[in-house]
Amino acid sequence: MGSVLPSFQWLSLFFLIISVNVCAFKIPRLGTWQRSTKERDPEISSSLHLSDDDLKTFYYTQRLDHFNYRPDSYHTFQQRYMVNFKYWGGAKSSAPIFAFFGAEGPVDEDAKYIGFLRDNAPQFNALIVFIEHRYYGKSIPFGSSEEAMRNASTRGYFNSAQAIADYAAVLLHIKKTLSAQNSPIIVIGGSYGGMLASWFRLKYPHIALGALASSAPILYFNGIAPQAGYYYIVTKDFKETSESCYQTIRKSWSEIDRVAKKPNGLSILSKRFKTCDKLNKSFDLKDYLDSLYTDAAQYNYPSEHPVKIVCGAIDAAAKKTDILGQIFEGVVAYKQHRSCYDMNEYNHPTESFLGWRWQTCSEIIMPIGHEKNDSMFPPAPFNMKTFVQECRSLYGVLPQPHWVTTYYGGPDLKLILHRFASNIIFSNGLRDPYSSGGVLESISNTVVAVTTVNGCHCLDIQSRKANDPQWLVTQRNTEVKIIKGWIAEYKADLIALTKQIKAPAEPKS
Amino acid sequence: MGSVLPSFQWLSLFFLIISVNVCAFKIPRLGTWQRSTKERDPEISSSLHLSDDDLKTFYYTQRLDHFNYRPDSYHTFQQRYMVNFKYWGGAKSSAPIFAFFGAEGPVDEDAKYIGFLRDNAPQFNALIVFIEHRYYGKSIPFGSSEEAMRNASTRGYFNSAQAIADYAAVLLHIKKTLSAQNSPIIVIGGSYGGMLASWFRLKYPHIALGALASSAPILYFNGIAPQAGYYYIVTKDFKETSESCYQTIRKSWSEIDRVAKKPNGLSILSKRFKTCDKLNKSFDLKDYLDSLYTDAAQYNYPSEHPVKIVCGAIDAAAKKTDILGQIFEGVVAYKQHRSCYDMNEYNHPTESFLGWRWQTCSEIIMPIGHEKNDSMFPPAPFNMKTFVQECRSLYGVLPQPHWVTTYYGGPDLKLILHRFASNIIFSNGLRDPYSSGGVLESISNTVVAVTTVNGCHCLDIQSRKANDPQWLVTQRNTEVKIIKGWIAEYKADLIALTKQIKAPAEPKS
Repeated sequence: MGSVLPSFQWLSLFFLIISVNVCAFKIPRLGTWQRSTKERDPEISSSLHLSDDDLKTFYYTQRLDHFNYRPDSYHTFQQRYMVNFKYWGGAKSSAPIFAFFGAEGPVDEDAKYIGFLRDNAPQFNALIVFIEHRYYGKSIPFGSSEEAMRNASTRGYFNSAQAIADYAAVLLHIKKTLSAQNSPIIVIGGSYGGMLASWFRLKYPHIALGALASSAPILYFNGIAPQAGYYYIVTKDFKETSESCYQTIRKSWSEIDRVAKKPNGLSILSKRFKTCDKLNKSFDLKDYLDSLYTDAAQYNYPSEHPVKIVCGAIDAAAKKTDILGQIFEGVVAYKQHRSCYDMNEYNHPTESFLGWRWQTCSEIIMPIGHEKNDSMFPPAPFNMKTFVQECRSLYGVLPQPHWVTTYYGGPDLKLILHRFASNIIFSNGLRDPYSSGGVLESISNTVVAVTTVNGCHCLDIQSRKANDPQWLVTQRNTEVKIIKGWIAEYKADLIALTKQIKAPAEPKS
Repeated sequence: MGSVLPSFQWLSLFFLIISVNVCAFKIPRLGTWQRSTKERDPEISSSLHLSDDDLKTFYYTQRLDHFNYRPDSYHTFQQRYMVNFKYWGGAKSSAPIFAFFGAEGPVDEDAKYIGFLRDNAPQFNALIVFIEHRYYGKSIPFGSSEEAMRNASTRGYFNSAQAIADYAAVLLHIKKTLSAQNSPIIVIGGSYGGMLASWFRLKYPHIALGALASSAPILYFNGIAPQAGYYYIVTKDFKETSESCYQTIRKSWSEIDRVAKKPNGLSILSKRFKTCDKLNKSFDLKDYLDSLYTDAAQYNYPSEHPVKIVCGAIDAAAKKTDILGQIFEGVVAYKQHRSCYDMNEYNHPTESFLGWRWQTCSEIIMPIGHEKNDSMFPPAPFNMKTFVQECRSLYGVLPQPHWVTTYYGGPDLKLILHRFASNIIFSNGLRDPYSSGGVLESISNTVVAVTTVNGCHCLDIQSRKANDPQWLVTQRNTEVKIIKGWIAEYKADLIALTKQIKAPAEPKS
């Protein structure tokens, strides 16, 4: 495993951004909620709990490296976490703690969209905690994002094992501070955060009683799930919504290429798609459309149904325009009327984008690709060798595609966890492309899959709404019931064990 | 947690040795076998399997840091492991793999004394593997022990989390090399290695099907087990062997102090105890005797019964000499007649001594101490503050006494593992002082304690002998039966799962 890098390659932020944008591999974004929601539909956003005055912010002095004793490892950073005490029943009644694990973004943003904790805390008398992931938001080592991401030495501490060890330390700190030793902790996460939640229950069962892992593609590693799964489901979502829409999209790629090859072809495409900047290559347009469609499928909320919106517009335009016109109408329907469309919208070098890019290039390596007949998209098979080379040139260190399955497992999950582990819910919506890497069948009575045919990415942990479809209400109720079962069993065990300790031993006859 | 060290303190090997020898705290040695056996009784040693021609040595290119992506983390070292193929049934029959986890010493030495694998491999058709712990034996990073232990930066990678991640990588490598994906792995370890084995099953259930953790004091951390447990059991062993011997030892400490205070007192003591070098302080004599008694109790093998030997000599001398004379007769009986006795014998700065000293000063912090009435020894309470200061001055970094329980758990073990985890045997001999930090009661049907009233440290995993007492034979048979049960269940699960995958899904009515 591993090899000695001949020399350390320093990369400027500029080079980083450039390289990311010309990246040949596209790992679709994860994320518990759709970051473009707000700009698309302010009305929907305003209906969400966008602020929570009861959430108090704290900082924990976190160790930089939990698995090393070099002097550098002892450096610390301030890790942000937020607590809502409003519903908590207190330590004396061993009232539970709901802890949301932040993922690849600022946790205060998550706190706005993730309603599962707040919606259910009252009936559990639960404390609500949101903990931010290291290297995101306000939880940045080395003083600033720029410093933290400056080179391979500062980025090296940015990985999942360190992140869940952080969560362990923060949760023990909270329990100690509140003298809540007997309060069971339920950890909750979505997407990458869902992976962290399930992995946390496996690695730290003494800290978390159970985990709700929403839309966690923990099998999208090291060849366990098929590479084409993601794009296969995106395609299926579109095809099932409208066969003609699917056909139009499928044909559009070669049409774009055909026009691009004309004299002034890129100018024609730029005009027809109202791009903010003139296209330099047709790839940028295709990449933008790829992101738009996968985004629509992944966050195909039942209240908005973006796939229907896109397909509705594409189909409606069939009689009045050509394929490119139809595709553009789909863009307009999804993004609304704008003076121009930014082809680079999905690749802006935000903190989340850059952080996640590093994580997917070092440790969280999900080989997502698709061949010619797998999907409605142009073929883009995943080539590990090229991927490794590209990441290496980007970041100066060698990606470790086998490490996730070495540390967390993955192959033979059913065989292994059938008689080991307990209290994990893997929830998935089967319309979510990432469900192709999820655990979709229950492994045991207590390691269970809860799926919905029509659900999308992380839908179950988002805030409850008045117009939620019945299947979503049922899914959430099922999850709540399971968690109640864990806590009831835990409390019974706790009482039994306390009695056992207090009772004098039976004299042996 | 943690704090930024103001500056890095470089420590010479010389200073290290000096400091260790004047150490105010005594953490009794762990170790699966008694390193002084051979010199004491060559006959006993020759009866052990001191060589195994069927063990082939291999080296694995191991990553220096599994939990970091700094360029330094990618450095590698050669990790030694040894394999005996003689009894293996092969990959096709999914024949099991017995893997012994090396601890604080060279693994080829372990392979001589640990007979459990070789004694039982034939009936299991098992492959035998011994893997060496990083920083010991031939598995040294940075080219040499001296370089590896030179400073806090090179020592930083020397800890248990990295060590079990090494074992994970080596075991996956062996399985891959032998195409033995379906061969279940049983990990076996004694003492510190027993902790590693049980922790490995908890952290890497996808790699090890089960663990036999012999004499693993996993509860001797962070205030879970009482500090005085170790010395309490040593005392009990002596008292139960001979009340008068116990009384003599108990009184001897003040007698040593009384003589030491006389003019030429240290010369008198040096002569009476035939010390190789003249005593500089009475502490050195008392420290030597402390080590001798704890050593005798910890490795109180039924074939030799060193506690009986020591006490027999002490009691027999009662009529012909004074207390000091009696104590000296105990030394002679245990160590045999020598021209002189090396008061520093137990503190020689061997690789094992220095490595273990680092580990117990950084991560594996077992607060062993005793007050006035706890034992037959002079009081030596454990003071964490002083301990931390001493380790810090020795190694330049802050010990992390809470980390073991944060990462591996410990408090509420029964409550937690009752419904999580499976397939761990915690075996203990109740005459072993370290059993005071062991798991002595079964936690569930599959996380079980196997104890013997008269057993000592790691006795069960040592080589079978013709004159083993029946209770030891029974203990080993129990362990074998449990392991057979795990493997049988695993094979049934494997067959059931394979059938399930092969069978077409039932059409839903």
